[in-house]
Amino acid sequence: MSVIPSSHEDLLTRPLFAHLSTIRSDGGPQSNPMWFAWDGAHLRLTTTTTRRKHQNVAGHPQVAVSVNDPDRPYRYLEVRGSVIRIDPDPEATFFAELAARYSFPMDGQPGDAPDRVVLVVEPRSVSYQ
Amino acid sequence: MSVIPSSHEDLLTRPLFAHLSTIRSDGGPQSNPMWFAWDGAHLRLTTTTTRRKHQNVAGHPQVAVSVNDPDRPYRYLEVRGSVIRIDPDPEATFFAELAARYSFPMDGQPGDAPDRVVLVVEPRSVSYQ
Repeated sequence: MSVIPSSHEDLLTRPLFAHLSTIRSDGGPQSNPMWFAWDGAHLRLTTTTTRRKHQNVAGHPQVAVSVNDPDRPYRYLEVRGSVIRIDPDPEATFFAELAARYSFPMDGQPGDAPDRVVLVVEPRSVSYQ
Repeated sequence: MSVIPSSHEDLLTRPLFAHLSTIRSDGGPQSNPMWFAWDGAHLRLTTTTTRRKHQNVAGHPQVAVSVNDPDRPYRYLEVRGSVIRIDPDPEATFFAELAARYSFPMDGQPGDAPDRVVLVVEPRSVSYQ
């Protein structure tokens, strides 16, 4: 049974940008617009092991994302949860899946493919309007 | 000397939505799309003392906001900083200022005016693309 309300699940299935909130080593928050995918159970995001946000979630797995509806800007969904896995993506396969979802032109593998990982987020609670 | 890069200050002066990241009492992050104003030195946001995000910043003043450019979605600005003051706004004066900035129709004072406050954020560091 998903915690995502069916009334707002379109905000996860449409190729919108999620603002990902992570916790830095000083305990303060960080917020970054991100690509993501939703499979009905988990949110997945791409990053690299060299990025601060990877370091953040490796140290503190709790995250939140908020997505608002560009067509109705007061409509939004916030998902809070935890990074339950960080999967290697050395062929940038998941990166390519997201690039296609977001109609981003790719010209071969990205140069940072060896460092690519997938953040797998399990939703625990939501807020929405 | 502002930490905000002049190349990206338009993301603060345009009436865009900021995604505000705050820290909950369990240490996990929360992310909410918000109205805001920028006066060249501080970000100001409206909330009420009954909202969770007020409780969050009262307990933990570090925050982050990210704003992306709807016209160029890979262009964004993240501002990290601290809530240095929480000012009462019992006449909803600042709320009305934001409503005008965002072209939000108002019909008199909002019902929650007595609980309205202004979160005053001092920027400390940024990331942008």
